[in-house]
Amino acid sequence: QTAATPAPAETWLPTLQVDTPQQGFDLAIVMARRAVKTTQPDVAVLKAQRPHYAGDAARLIDVSGVAAAWFATIAAANGYWRD
Amino acid sequence: QTAATPAPAETWLPTLQVDTPQQGFDLAIVMARRAVKTTQPDVAVLKAQRPHYAGDAARLIDVSGVAAAWFATIAAANGYWRD
Amino acid sequence: QTAATPAPAETWLPTLQVDTPQQGFDLAIVMARRAVKTTQPDVAVLKAQRPHYAGDAARLIDVSGVAAAWFATIAAANGYWRD
Amino acid sequence: QTAATPAPAETWLPTLQVDTPQQGFDLAIVMARRAVKTTQPDVAVLKAQRPHYAGDAARLIDVSGVAAAWFATIAAANGYWRD
Amino acid sequence: QTAATPAPAETWLPTLQVDTPQQGFDLAIVMARRAVKTTQPDVAVLKAQRPHYAGDAARLIDVSGVAAAWFATIAAANGYWRD
Amino acid sequence: QTAATPAPAETWLPTLQVDTPQQGFDLAIVMARRAVKTTQPDVAVLKAQRPHYAGDAARLIDVSGVAAAWFATIAAANGYWRD
Repeated sequence: QTAATPAPAETWLPTLQVDTPQQGFDLAIVMARRAVKTTQPDVAVLKAQRPHYAGDAARLIDVSGVAAAWFATIAAANGYWRD
Repeated sequence: QTAATPAPAETWLPTLQVDTPQQGFDLAIVMARRAVKTTQPDVAVLKAQRPHYAGDAARLIDVSGVAAAWFATIAAANGYWRD
Repeated sequence: QTAATPAPAETWLPTLQVDTPQQGFDLAIVMARRAVKTTQPDVAVLKAQRPHYAGDAARLIDVSGVAAAWFATIAAANGYWRD
Repeated sequence: QTAATPAPAETWLPTLQVDTPQQGFDLAIVMARRAVKTTQPDVAVLKAQRPHYAGDAARLIDVSGVAAAWFATIAAANGYWRD
Repeated sequence: QTAATPAPAETWLPTLQVDTPQQGFDLAIVMARRAVKTTQPDVAVLKAQRPHYAGDAARLIDVSGVAAAWFATIAAANGYWRD
Repeated sequence: QTAATPAPAETWLPTLQVDTPQQGFDLAIVMARRAVKTTQPDVAVLKAQRPHYAGDAARLIDVSGVAAAWFATIAAANGYWRD
């Protein structure tokens, strides 16, 4: 892999299949954060933003709504772990 | 379990299956709050935020929307408790 | 039931099954408001908030979106009252 | 029907079944507005709010999102008018 | 059609069926904008609002979320164009 | 193709079918951004807006919610990549 050829994309999401709802919840958090990082790759900027959401009720409520949206898809993907 | 090895993750969500819609509603509230706590583990910070949402119409409406999103998935997971 | 043992939880949501879409709409409003009350049980606080949402276009639009989210699940639970 | 007995609830939503997507869109607008009116029955208040949403980009975008949520359920209820 | 009788409603949404996902995306934009226009028919007012959303990150993000909600229904209506 | 006849629309979304969840996630980002660009085609304006969302916690959370909405449809379109 030379400077000219771009690094192969990192495989971070091989599947939506996980064993338990709790792992599904954790994957939802991963995907939610990944969408943020895709928009803002600069970790320093993200860390500087933490006080603006982690200590703000409105933002924390929004975060839960976003996690719910990602989780809904993951749960459907896993047949709601019924069996 | 030594200081080096991290504590095994607490199992808080073994299943999405609950017996009644009311239990499904309660689980939705649990999951909604868990997503907040995953983002902000510091309970003192969360408690300090309570006046900013529990006495604010806009935030209370947002909370209900978030609960609805979690409940939608739980209800689907339980076949809407039809049988 | 003694002071020590907590009162049994009130059964307010025995089922999602209702006869008509209009009853489904009404149940959606009940569930939306219940999520608010679960977060803020103090009725006096809720009543004090009424001017902040019942006379505010942005909040009223949000309320309708939240009702739609609850209604979507109730409608699915009732097979959209097709039969 | 005496003053003591409340007026029977007006039947405004007998069914979700409509013939065309356009009627489904119109019903979504009706349901969205009904949820607002259920929260704020005072038409004078609602009319006074019109400048605050009908001339505000943010609110108009929110309105479209809310209509989409109601329409999604109506469309599913009608099998997406495929046949 | 006389002044007394209202003009027959224009048929703008005969079906949700379109041939490709891209046409589905375009229809989602049409439906999203139609919901805005149903609320604010005055095109001059809408045009005056353009700077308030077309040059505002928060509003542009909201617009994308609204388009996603309309698209979700159109995609389901078309069986996700799988065949 | 003459000045009179409009350029044929660029085909950017031939299908929702992609091979992996990660490609589905990437397509969701593409579609989310496309909806923004459909509303605001002026790339210079979009770039000028970047500081207003890429360094703002509230906006970054909104972006993740929008990505989740697009991803939900793409995942359903691909049968959640189960097979």
